[in-house]
Amino acid sequence: MYEKVKNYNFKPFIGDNELLLIAGPCAVEDEDNLTITAKFLLENGIHYMRAGAYKPRTSPYTFQGLEEKGLNILKRVKEKTGIKVVSEIVDISQIPSYEAIVDIIQVGARNMQNFALLKALGKINKPILLKRGFGSTIHEWLYACEYLLNEGNHQVILCERGIKTFETMTRNTLDISSVPIIKGITKIPVIIDPSHSSGRSDLIIPLAKAGVAVGANGLLIEVHNHPHLALSDKDETIDFDTFKELLKQVKMLTDLYNKEVI
Amino acid sequence: MYEKVKNYNFKPFIGDNELLLIAGPCAVEDEDNLTITAKFLLENGIHYMRAGAYKPRTSPYTFQGLEEKGLNILKRVKEKTGIKVVSEIVDISQIPSYEAIVDIIQVGARNMQNFALLKALGKINKPILLKRGFGSTIHEWLYACEYLLNEGNHQVILCERGIKTFETMTRNTLDISSVPIIKGITKIPVIIDPSHSSGRSDLIIPLAKAGVAVGANGLLIEVHNHPHLALSDKDETIDFDTFKELLKQVKMLTDLYNKEVI
Amino acid sequence: MYEKVKNYNFKPFIGDNELLLIAGPCAVEDEDNLTITAKFLLENGIHYMRAGAYKPRTSPYTFQGLEEKGLNILKRVKEKTGIKVVSEIVDISQIPSYEAIVDIIQVGARNMQNFALLKALGKINKPILLKRGFGSTIHEWLYACEYLLNEGNHQVILCERGIKTFETMTRNTLDISSVPIIKGITKIPVIIDPSHSSGRSDLIIPLAKAGVAVGANGLLIEVHNHPHLALSDKDETIDFDTFKELLKQVKMLTDLYNKEVI
Amino acid sequence: MYEKVKNYNFKPFIGDNELLLIAGPCAVEDEDNLTITAKFLLENGIHYMRAGAYKPRTSPYTFQGLEEKGLNILKRVKEKTGIKVVSEIVDISQIPSYEAIVDIIQVGARNMQNFALLKALGKINKPILLKRGFGSTIHEWLYACEYLLNEGNHQVILCERGIKTFETMTRNTLDISSVPIIKGITKIPVIIDPSHSSGRSDLIIPLAKAGVAVGANGLLIEVHNHPHLALSDKDETIDFDTFKELLKQVKMLTDLYNKEVI
Repeated sequence: MYEKVKNYNFKPFIGDNELLLIAGPCAVEDEDNLTITAKFLLENGIHYMRAGAYKPRTSPYTFQGLEEKGLNILKRVKEKTGIKVVSEIVDISQIPSYEAIVDIIQVGARNMQNFALLKALGKINKPILLKRGFGSTIHEWLYACEYLLNEGNHQVILCERGIKTFETMTRNTLDISSVPIIKGITKIPVIIDPSHSSGRSDLIIPLAKAGVAVGANGLLIEVHNHPHLALSDKDETIDFDTFKELLKQVKMLTDLYNKEVI
Repeated sequence: MYEKVKNYNFKPFIGDNELLLIAGPCAVEDEDNLTITAKFLLENGIHYMRAGAYKPRTSPYTFQGLEEKGLNILKRVKEKTGIKVVSEIVDISQIPSYEAIVDIIQVGARNMQNFALLKALGKINKPILLKRGFGSTIHEWLYACEYLLNEGNHQVILCERGIKTFETMTRNTLDISSVPIIKGITKIPVIIDPSHSSGRSDLIIPLAKAGVAVGANGLLIEVHNHPHLALSDKDETIDFDTFKELLKQVKMLTDLYNKEVI
Repeated sequence: MYEKVKNYNFKPFIGDNELLLIAGPCAVEDEDNLTITAKFLLENGIHYMRAGAYKPRTSPYTFQGLEEKGLNILKRVKEKTGIKVVSEIVDISQIPSYEAIVDIIQVGARNMQNFALLKALGKINKPILLKRGFGSTIHEWLYACEYLLNEGNHQVILCERGIKTFETMTRNTLDISSVPIIKGITKIPVIIDPSHSSGRSDLIIPLAKAGVAVGANGLLIEVHNHPHLALSDKDETIDFDTFKELLKQVKMLTDLYNKEVI
Repeated sequence: MYEKVKNYNFKPFIGDNELLLIAGPCAVEDEDNLTITAKFLLENGIHYMRAGAYKPRTSPYTFQGLEEKGLNILKRVKEKTGIKVVSEIVDISQIPSYEAIVDIIQVGARNMQNFALLKALGKINKPILLKRGFGSTIHEWLYACEYLLNEGNHQVILCERGIKTFETMTRNTLDISSVPIIKGITKIPVIIDPSHSSGRSDLIIPLAKAGVAVGANGLLIEVHNHPHLALSDKDETIDFDTFKELLKQVKMLTDLYNKEVI
């Protein structure tokens, strides 16, 4: 049973006394706005910005991301501001450009069991953020992680982002219990994504607090300078002021637990 | 849509700066052990003890509770120690004895939509702890609460105890998002039950911390002086030492948020 | 494990070469319309009519059934037409009147684990239709049945009516696999309810056919002389002409399998 | 909303009076056994054989398929026997070899939202069997199909294979209602897979019958000459004799509905 996950003995990407906060817009939209967001994050001590160039969307007719153009914007914003970038990969063919530009490569929920992609990512030297599939058990998720480890890539971060249930008041159900379960099995860091799990901006702060309290090693937060203008996921995206409040609340908890936001 | 829930303007059973901690064994087993537990809880500043006299069990062949004898034990332990008691009701016919002995009457998950019972409990003057059904949406749960309010009983506490999902590493999936969702709708207090939701003693402390951080008004915890001897739910029950650690961790958070454990 | 279910060796309520078809409106509404429906069913060879007097409804503000008045209407329609009646019980206190009037007493999905009610119904001499709870596993359902058998009532019929899942195009998800699973465990008859599981009148005929083909011992169908005027469940109720088409389709299958619609 | 699915007006791959029966082992194991199976199927009037060369497996340590070698075996068995082959693709890079060898390319449940793969398959001239993701709604599934249609490939077959629910007696829950729902929306054929949905060989025949009765356009069945020696999915695989009984039962229904097994 996922032996390499169980016996993981590398230096985890996130240290015991650290909380990794990744934030940013759902998608790369344009260079100016992304630069504004990058600067805002850096001013607030956040060093990793998420932003999608390729967006897996339920419908082929909704915004699919700026694709290669989006990657180039990410590259320029990174060069200009010094921020590190996290972005989702959707196909093996993109690996070379992601290796060149992206600091943490995200495997999204829909590709958690795209084993061909996992095997290829297991062969590169770049941190991988592996989101839990919304229809996947913790058991299946840890095995997906084992695919990465088994190929030799041990720079892995797991991300709980909610599962499909019968409850309809949230987009998915954040399975917060997965965090302590995984911590009982492995030293691989696990972070939570309150934005995608809930799909509701009003729940981001309380769920982020729950995530820190439950022992997660980090948070993935959707933030946009103008959430109502976001081209995707606007209902779950918070604005800069709300993000500052979130950061204040998170820091109350990291102070309590002697952790540092990185 | 659950108008009385939405426009609730009574004094909630749990104040804004309070955290209600209810703890105790799954079931009343014998007077001596229950007295030991009651004293332990009181010494640690806990004033409400849970213990079931009538136990709804999946199988008719597993321990069904001591029933009337159990209620009498509860009564004597209460008289001896001064602790308040919380116990689950399973039929309308029990209302008079519960009114006489029990301080908070619990409606369990399996009876959340036993509307005949809810209507009858809506007519009495006693706090009701309404657990969420494991197959019920938040919407259905709030409507079940509306049945109580509509009959005139406004001393209500909601309790999130997990829902059925495909995940098998926990007994149920704690839907922690339900807490901030309900807080956005009503002032009725909502507490969480990490014990029944997870079914795993190793998850109780982290989930309790998550519950306090997410804004729950209280916790329902299964504790037993000898968990391995408990006649029911032994896998999810913590011992006295673990409970003290839980209390310490909870108080770090209530101190942070200027709340008091009651 | 549910030994009495497994080793059931009584004459089942529905014979091997029979298909029990129960049909009728969701609720008793008025005597004239119910009489029309009863006559229609009898003319079409259907001998059991369902109709609810007490309706468990999510909201206390929607139609709760005509209650005692509804039972009296059922009684009179039964006397006038000779039809047998199936109706849902919601509380122990109703047992005497149900024993006097109702031919098959239904325990609804919300009360599947109302063990106090099950124990009481296990002591009477009247067939019980036990619906599966929408949040209950087959395992839990069979144990609920064991409560009835264990008290001595072996006139039991199980009814699959769908479970809660993430799918939203149907009200619940008909778990048709439960039929052959149960047939592999016990001789207790199991019927399916396409109306409540799907919540969609356009799915009733295909699901009824699937039910017969999978080996179910019967069907529970909502039919109303004027579905759009039904006081509850109008979206899942079919009209008389559609019912005749359903009956024709069902008989093609029962003829194929040498069964008789009773 | 999936306009091209809704307004589909091409000649469907499966005609109105046809039932497509695809059968075969989970995985290509060796040429001799596969040849035996191919001949058995052809002798029984089955023209499409399924067999996986690349197997997406939860664990990297279980049999992953014979991969390229498996494809070559498929090619030779096809040449020798004349059977048509259905096999699952797991990466874009495999498209050229699948185009050359495979008659119907299967997209598995885990890749249902691998949009990069769908877009690429939408550009080729080869029938695609699109399985429903076990965590996907019908709505999401139809949109995945829209990705194929939108790129120009209209030779599509949908395959219901069960969804994740809380029920544990089956591997997944066959959502049989999806068949009539989809038939109400589009003329694209939809088949069911009783083997993967249930994970239990004893349920295959009743579920296959239910599938035909509900109106499915075909069936996907796992069959192996020695099920207990199968390298994967042995619990859900039936042997040749059981397959013959299945075929007999299916033909009773196709005769009734004037359909022909193809």
